[in-house]
Amino acid sequence: MSKGRLIVFSAPSGCGKGTMLAEILKDEGFYLSVSATTRLPREGETDGVNYYFLTKEEFEQKISENRFFEYACYCGNYYGTLLSEVDDKLEEGKNVILEIEVQGAMKIRQLRPDALFVFVIPPSVRELERRLRKRGTETDEVIAKRVAAAVEELKYAPKYDYIIVNDALEDAVSDFRAVIKAESLRTEYAAEILDEVINNA
Amino acid sequence: MSKGRLIVFSAPSGCGKGTMLAEILKDEGFYLSVSATTRLPREGETDGVNYYFLTKEEFEQKISENRFFEYACYCGNYYGTLLSEVDDKLEEGKNVILEIEVQGAMKIRQLRPDALFVFVIPPSVRELERRLRKRGTETDEVIAKRVAAAVEELKYAPKYDYIIVNDALEDAVSDFRAVIKAESLRTEYAAEILDEVINNA
Repeated sequence: MSKGRLIVFSAPSGCGKGTMLAEILKDEGFYLSVSATTRLPREGETDGVNYYFLTKEEFEQKISENRFFEYACYCGNYYGTLLSEVDDKLEEGKNVILEIEVQGAMKIRQLRPDALFVFVIPPSVRELERRLRKRGTETDEVIAKRVAAAVEELKYAPKYDYIIVNDALEDAVSDFRAVIKAESLRTEYAAEILDEVINNA
Repeated sequence: MSKGRLIVFSAPSGCGKGTMLAEILKDEGFYLSVSATTRLPREGETDGVNYYFLTKEEFEQKISENRFFEYACYCGNYYGTLLSEVDDKLEEGKNVILEIEVQGAMKIRQLRPDALFVFVIPPSVRELERRLRKRGTETDEVIAKRVAAAVEELKYAPKYDYIIVNDALEDAVSDFRAVIKAESLRTEYAAEILDEVINNA
């Protein structure tokens, strides 16, 4: 069995990333990496599903054991991806999706040049604003801030390998599947197949 | 409208290249480049469909006018691809397919680093031999020669961008479509879209 691919998946908020991932994960070949954190679980969050909730001591113990793929400290809490979430699943042949913001993604670029970087964008910034407004849970000020943040994040898009516009969910998911399929056909990943074809002469 | 992509398409004989192309060309977005030649038309061949049949003088006139994308001389006849077959169609937004053997393909690598190189292989050399034998038109000696030629051509596969195994026609065509879709989503081709999304703020 061949190893899976590591897929770094980013999108500004309001791009429908969650809905897209839910659809993609219906396919057994994919695994969404679960992050570890020292922040307290919120209402409705489950350990091992939303996050692995660790104490500060547990987290630092794992850091000292080099068990993190990457980690960072935000607002006094640790957040990180355990190596076991990535490498074990890749060995099992799963395509591992890391849902991560742009700066974390750039760090992974250095660590794993073989990872696949996919960036999801809205059809337009105007549409993004409309979607955020539609939720009806945020003030104008918060929405303005989120839109400004999204525009900043969009500047990182050229550093990714593929850009998918999420206008219609179905098309965006189908684009994602095409990317994964095509990547598996790239010559560098097909070397094994080629050997088999020739040597099965 | 964005420009089309130039697609170099190669496969050893017996890989079902013709059937695949017929299927792919049902999609309006593709154009199969027609070669020019000085050899005489065979029974059933139509000018402008199978080849552009030119006299030696016409062909050499076009060479002197730099109207060829590439050309070569085999067995005393010229064969070549007219620039008009490539660039005009790309400008029209068509994906232009050049069906070409491996050595011609390697020349195009130099001329057009932006072209997409797709190599179609059989599920195994054994299966290729079976397919050639099934045609029932060739002697054992000819088949052995063709298989040996195919094995030689397969060695060029790693120089292509994508490798598609033609086992079931439908899967091979669907793989090809995934490659074209994914390539259109690659960041370098999506720059225009990104500009629009951001500036439509």
